[in-house]
Amino acid sequence: MELNLNRADFLANHWQKKPLLLRNGFANFADLIEPELLAGLAMEEAVDARIIRQVNNGWDVEHGPFEDYERFGDVDWTLLVQAVNEWFPEVQELLSAFRFLPDWRVDDVMVSFATENGGVGPHLDQYDVFIIQGGGRRHWRVGERASNLVEVCPHPDLKQLENGQFEAVIDAILEPGDVLYIPAGCPHNGIALEPSINYSVGFRAPNSAEWLAQIADQLLASELSFPRYQDPELTTESPSYQVRADEVAQVRELLITQLHTAIGADAITRVMSQSKRPLAAAENTLSTNELLSYASTDMLIGRTPGARILRSPTGELYSNGEILPQLNESATTALLELRSEQPLAHLDQILGDRQACECLVELIQQGVLYLVQEVADEDDS
Amino acid sequence: MELNLNRADFLANHWQKKPLLLRNGFANFADLIEPELLAGLAMEEAVDARIIRQVNNGWDVEHGPFEDYERFGDVDWTLLVQAVNEWFPEVQELLSAFRFLPDWRVDDVMVSFATENGGVGPHLDQYDVFIIQGGGRRHWRVGERASNLVEVCPHPDLKQLENGQFEAVIDAILEPGDVLYIPAGCPHNGIALEPSINYSVGFRAPNSAEWLAQIADQLLASELSFPRYQDPELTTESPSYQVRADEVAQVRELLITQLHTAIGADAITRVMSQSKRPLAAAENTLSTNELLSYASTDMLIGRTPGARILRSPTGELYSNGEILPQLNESATTALLELRSEQPLAHLDQILGDRQACECLVELIQQGVLYLVQEVADEDDS
Ligand SMILES: O=C(O)CCC(=O)C(=O)O
Ligand SMILES: O=C(O)CCC(=O)C(=O)O
Ligand SMILES: [Co+2]
Ligand SMILES: [Co+2]
Repeated sequence: MELNLNRADFLANHWQKKPLLLRNGFANFADLIEPELLAGLAMEEAVDARIIRQVNNGWDVEHGPFEDYERFGDVDWTLLVQAVNEWFPEVQELLSAFRFLPDWRVDDVMVSFATENGGVGPHLDQYDVFIIQGGGRRHWRVGERASNLVEVCPHPDLKQLENGQFEAVIDAILEPGDVLYIPAGCPHNGIALEPSINYSVGFRAPNSAEWLAQIADQLLASELSFPRYQDPELTTESPSYQVRADEVAQVRELLITQLHTAIGADAITRVMSQSKRPLAAAENTLSTNELLSYASTDMLIGRTPGARILRSPTGELYSNGEILPQLNESATTALLELRSEQPLAHLDQILGDRQACECLVELIQQGVLYLVQEVADEDDS
Repeated sequence: MELNLNRADFLANHWQKKPLLLRNGFANFADLIEPELLAGLAMEEAVDARIIRQVNNGWDVEHGPFEDYERFGDVDWTLLVQAVNEWFPEVQELLSAFRFLPDWRVDDVMVSFATENGGVGPHLDQYDVFIIQGGGRRHWRVGERASNLVEVCPHPDLKQLENGQFEAVIDAILEPGDVLYIPAGCPHNGIALEPSINYSVGFRAPNSAEWLAQIADQLLASELSFPRYQDPELTTESPSYQVRADEVAQVRELLITQLHTAIGADAITRVMSQSKRPLAAAENTLSTNELLSYASTDMLIGRTPGARILRSPTGELYSNGEILPQLNESATTALLELRSEQPLAHLDQILGDRQACECLVELIQQGVLYLVQEVADEDDS
């Protein structure tokens, strides 16, 4: 799948700056999931799904798993399902069109199915998002960031904009294949003209508190020994209950110094390499020799949707919050580019190198990668 | 209790720098707790106690609660009990001698009872500590910080110095009332010449990772909205799996900027004001009017050992990880100086001010302060 977009122009003028409407961003776009399958997925315990609807001039939010949809009627509601890419490879494939943006920023693909007049109301997000119009049409309005936008909660689980008013710079009826780009913080509102599907490719941008918490987790888990607080020169002047400004400064400097070390950069990169949800470790153990024996079968290997493999500024491989052993250049590249399912046998650069094989086994054990038997054609069975 | 010490000289030349032996630091020192009481305390589930002993040329560590001590024999072991100040007001009182050091740095008073030849072996601590010799005598050796000291674990729960050798700058037999000051990181070893008690007044110095974790907890609990990560100017050059150095720098700058804000300083001060262990909230609710009605009784008020009340560099009151409402100057000082039990009725500066009363009630509810009926003399009963 390819996105019709001038990337350089987009990065310079729109990304994190200004909304954009791309008519026919995906040519001949066909839905990646049927509404019935989406509704079925939202019946699963492990899936994060919501129905947002207008009732009696108010708003209601219900959380999945859902048992049936009849009681919601034919109009005024939207079903929103998070991380559909983690369940449907076709939806995961959509992300390949966004490889001109940093992998570690990708959050997930949310898919929504709206009935006529369905929508979630005018709102802001803390995520940068591309919304791809699938089957059906929706009327979208998008504004620029503005300081006068006030958020309110018409329902405890729903944030919208007060009064619902904002000045639109995009006001359009989206047809299948059209793509909207909405930077974090820009007001937007979509209303379905008919039953319709939207795909939201979201890019996370953790806030300072979230980063601090996750970096601290990484540092503490490392069990390294870290520099400790040291008092500034103390005097007998201030009472013992007085916290001095230079004590607070001393704490701050301790942390800033830590962030500037290689250990600080390592912790930041580990955080970037973590998946949104913890990966499920493989159920069976695998030896390097077993892996090599599979290379002569039709076994496929793929990357678990949501799992990240990154290369750090200094060239190290990171995945799942950990640093991987140094491999030769071609094995490194092969690992980084291993995404959708392919025959294991094709991974020459890895299979030919013992250390790279061990690394591959480790990634399979952690659930970053998976092995799967090629599915036989139906008429074979 | 008063410590015979030239404070200015100590702060300038010893604190966090160099060990010091203070002969007769406490004149006429009498034990603050009997060995039998300490042994009894170590039988409680809630108490953090260890016995460290030498067995067959090796070391053994057992954790409390203990049921009896007979099996340990007459020699070669030490019972160490943490935070005895939280259980015995007499031990808490010892801290009053150290009010020339910042309150928020105080960790606890650990008390050890050693049998003849008992000791925990040569080791380092990450804490600055004053060791006060109670009843009995111990032979203490203390060295300066040195880069060649290697830590080993003769038992999973015990760190000691490899070979046990270090050059001593203090080598002395401590008598009751003698005080040792040992900066964090200085090697030391004490061996009991006879059954003897030591009081260790410890000062915590959290490391960078611990600060980050606690500051993050404070920020996340505040439910404020924090600035989010923003990409540097992106280009189409690097592959999506490449983390760029300026992306890591962008994260770092986001955090450094956050630490420099007033919100950052507030979070740091909140962390400083937290007690070592969570305080137990009061069991009954109390109204301001009830509090005022107690003022005409012989009710006493005191600060829970381990609870902190601090004043920030900008003059705000902090306690138990929270900022308190602004009070007038004299009420503020009265609260800050309220430590050991005193008649509630004496707190004129607080009782005469409605807002200060409400603050007092809040601190009582949180368990920072407590009310207690004056204990009647025994022959009254
Ligand atoms: O799909 C929808 O109705 C809402 C999508 C949206 O607002 C978003 O992805 O930010
Ligand atoms: O009391 C003891 O035996 C050990 C004391 C000690 O090493 C300390 O407080 O750092
Ligand atoms: Co949105
Ligand atoms: Co020690």
